[in-house]
Amino acid sequence: MKLSANNPDRKSWLNVLHGCDFPIQNIPFGVFITKDDIITIGTRIGEFAIDLSAFHQLGYFNGIPLTDDIFMQDSLNDFIADGRKTWRLVRNRIADVFDNENSTLRDNKKHRDVIIFDVNEVEMLLPIDIGDFTDFYSSKHHAKNVSDIYDLKDGPLENNWLHMPLGLNQRASSVVVSGTPIKRPVGQTLSKNASTPSFGPSQKLDMEVETAFITTAANHFGEPIPVNEAEEYIFGMVLLNDWSSRDVQQWESKPLGPFLSKSFASTISPWIVTLDALEPWRCESPKQEGLLPYLKPEETTNSFDINLNTYLETENGDLNLLSASNFKNIYWTMNQQLAHQTINGCNVRAADLFGSGTISGEDKNSVGSLFELTWNGENPITLKDNTKRTFLNNGDNVILRGYCKNDKVRIGFGKCTGKVIAGIESK
Amino acid sequence: MKLSANNPDRKSWLNVLHGCDFPIQNIPFGVFITKDDIITIGTRIGEFAIDLSAFHQLGYFNGIPLTDDIFMQDSLNDFIADGRKTWRLVRNRIADVFDNENSTLRDNKKHRDVIIFDVNEVEMLLPIDIGDFTDFYSSKHHAKNVSDIYDLKDGPLENNWLHMPLGLNQRASSVVVSGTPIKRPVGQTLSKNASTPSFGPSQKLDMEVETAFITTAANHFGEPIPVNEAEEYIFGMVLLNDWSSRDVQQWESKPLGPFLSKSFASTISPWIVTLDALEPWRCESPKQEGLLPYLKPEETTNSFDINLNTYLETENGDLNLLSASNFKNIYWTMNQQLAHQTINGCNVRAADLFGSGTISGEDKNSVGSLFELTWNGENPITLKDNTKRTFLNNGDNVILRGYCKNDKVRIGFGKCTGKVIAGIESK
Repeated sequence: MKLSANNPDRKSWLNVLHGCDFPIQNIPFGVFITKDDIITIGTRIGEFAIDLSAFHQLGYFNGIPLTDDIFMQDSLNDFIADGRKTWRLVRNRIADVFDNENSTLRDNKKHRDVIIFDVNEVEMLLPIDIGDFTDFYSSKHHAKNVSDIYDLKDGPLENNWLHMPLGLNQRASSVVVSGTPIKRPVGQTLSKNASTPSFGPSQKLDMEVETAFITTAANHFGEPIPVNEAEEYIFGMVLLNDWSSRDVQQWESKPLGPFLSKSFASTISPWIVTLDALEPWRCESPKQEGLLPYLKPEETTNSFDINLNTYLETENGDLNLLSASNFKNIYWTMNQQLAHQTINGCNVRAADLFGSGTISGEDKNSVGSLFELTWNGENPITLKDNTKRTFLNNGDNVILRGYCKNDKVRIGFGKCTGKVIAGIESK
Repeated sequence: MKLSANNPDRKSWLNVLHGCDFPIQNIPFGVFITKDDIITIGTRIGEFAIDLSAFHQLGYFNGIPLTDDIFMQDSLNDFIADGRKTWRLVRNRIADVFDNENSTLRDNKKHRDVIIFDVNEVEMLLPIDIGDFTDFYSSKHHAKNVSDIYDLKDGPLENNWLHMPLGLNQRASSVVVSGTPIKRPVGQTLSKNASTPSFGPSQKLDMEVETAFITTAANHFGEPIPVNEAEEYIFGMVLLNDWSSRDVQQWESKPLGPFLSKSFASTISPWIVTLDALEPWRCESPKQEGLLPYLKPEETTNSFDINLNTYLETENGDLNLLSASNFKNIYWTMNQQLAHQTINGCNVRAADLFGSGTISGEDKNSVGSLFELTWNGENPITLKDNTKRTFLNNGDNVILRGYCKNDKVRIGFGKCTGKVIAGIESK
């Protein structure tokens, strides 16, 4: 099917400011609640949130096989389960209706009034009811930094890391939408030279800059997904901040891996950008050698050129750029991650979430965590307001941005933000 | 509220054979599908499956605040979310209606015909739509055996294990109901003295004998559950076989813990036995010292005396008892597990699943895995048919049984079974 929505020359009759993440070539999907307490699935063009329930009810999807209530939901799960053919028909149709050349909706004030909202007047909700949440560990520079910081002689890069996309199961219940305040977690930690653990607020609260992809129902129990088919099952991507308590992590992680140090919260951006929208930014994936056949793709262009910028906003409003990185730094592609996840027969469902792992580039200005940026707190950084940070302070707002750009078009993910606030109370 | 359903002197007008796991004192909850393709929530007495949708529709729950369709569901999630007060009212009422002294339903053939089925004529389904699945690691003997087998000088028992219930997030999508065949998984393993991994069917496929508990919605994001309140949120328990590929596990587990070696399948028993039904078998929990306050309960009777027997059934029908253990061997109680899971603010939802971890007793005849029983394959065991096992063969049927017994009553979980079949096909 032609991805006509991607036509770079299209303009919309809705105003899109220069540099906006949401031109008519994007058409992401999300869930929002209006001022009148109506929850709906929607999309966004410029500074406008578009109610797809109303759009559908008024006949703008006529001819596309959709159930009546497919957009009258508090999650995208059912729409995602409809599969790629339907996603494409829907996205192309939205692009057509909002195209400059199409006056049908533009000239119908009554329809516009119930379909189009100021994006600042709606509240974005978590877009999916997440089934399972896997977090991979697929950035080579990140894995190397972790090895170096902990001085691991027998580190993963010397062993299994180059042979497969390592990952871990993560907690789905505590995934929250951008903007949700993050309470500093409490937990057990082991102080230097202590023999028994202390208890209290984490002193090494960190961000992890990631992207994540979301699947449709992909396979049955017991049937792996071949690496060359994996992409068909990927609906789209979001930004992900996988908050981590480094002090809790160090004490609890042997032998089963991180647990409470990551399960307290993970933040995702509210608009799911479809893989179709990202297609113009497809690029070469990193060179890999000695792959087992189930991880060996036929094509080599399995990555996407997505810029990732991370800011720390202090309480005075200063924006400090912490990191400028790119998704193409990721060594293991999404296809390989999905092929690996299912090679043992594990089934993947609609609205499962798969994090990339912390995305770090080669140099210091492109690492995806304070752990790496300050070398586990050894080298504090100085912010614009002259305060120093090793890890996050209460009041710090972490902002992830992601976007793709070429000569004609820029599309993006909007923001993924979370402000650290004072902590959990334990009775 | 009085747990009148637990009255040990009650008899039912439904026949219950001696030694049956499901006398009128049990009243577990499950989901089944009838020969007429009707899916319903039900309970079981003796060899009878009881359709609670029909029971409700015909007025037998009159006076209990329940929505009309609460039992017309393919999962227990909504009923579990109703909370403990409702579970107790429902369980007590079922006990009253099926009590020997109560003739209302007994003498109404028309009602009996639509409510009561032969348990062999219904098919049990997965009873819950699992939100998150945590697997703890709470048996001290098991943790010690693992340390000894791998000769870990810096093992968990020397470090963090005695200070908190270690656990890991597990995959929810591949939890299946008892009776589902288990395809031998394929995956990467590292042969002895090899420098690069091999790929193929796991050669060390193992069982893990566990129990698991299921919660109702317990807390909000950011609010821990105090250890002394935790039990209020536990609906009931099931048997769990957390299948594991030991060869895959050894190659993949550093540094993030087991991933594909456990995510291919986990089997649970179909009937959820309520914590209320287990109340008469409450017993002292293991002595623990030096606990941090958030893990320190006021009471010391936080365990349950549940016998756990594990059998390997070979294709000729021989039943080989592999292990006779007891749930009270578990060091960390369910209350402590739930308090620990949430101490960082992680939210727990209705139908979340929490595995105990492999339950091993002190001696060789009470260990919960072949890994321990054969000391990682070093000491094969001989079965009744004179074949040997280090790990599971194709055709082996693993059967878990669990029951509680006193002078007057025996209640149990039925069976949790899974037969290993030939493997995954990877394209």
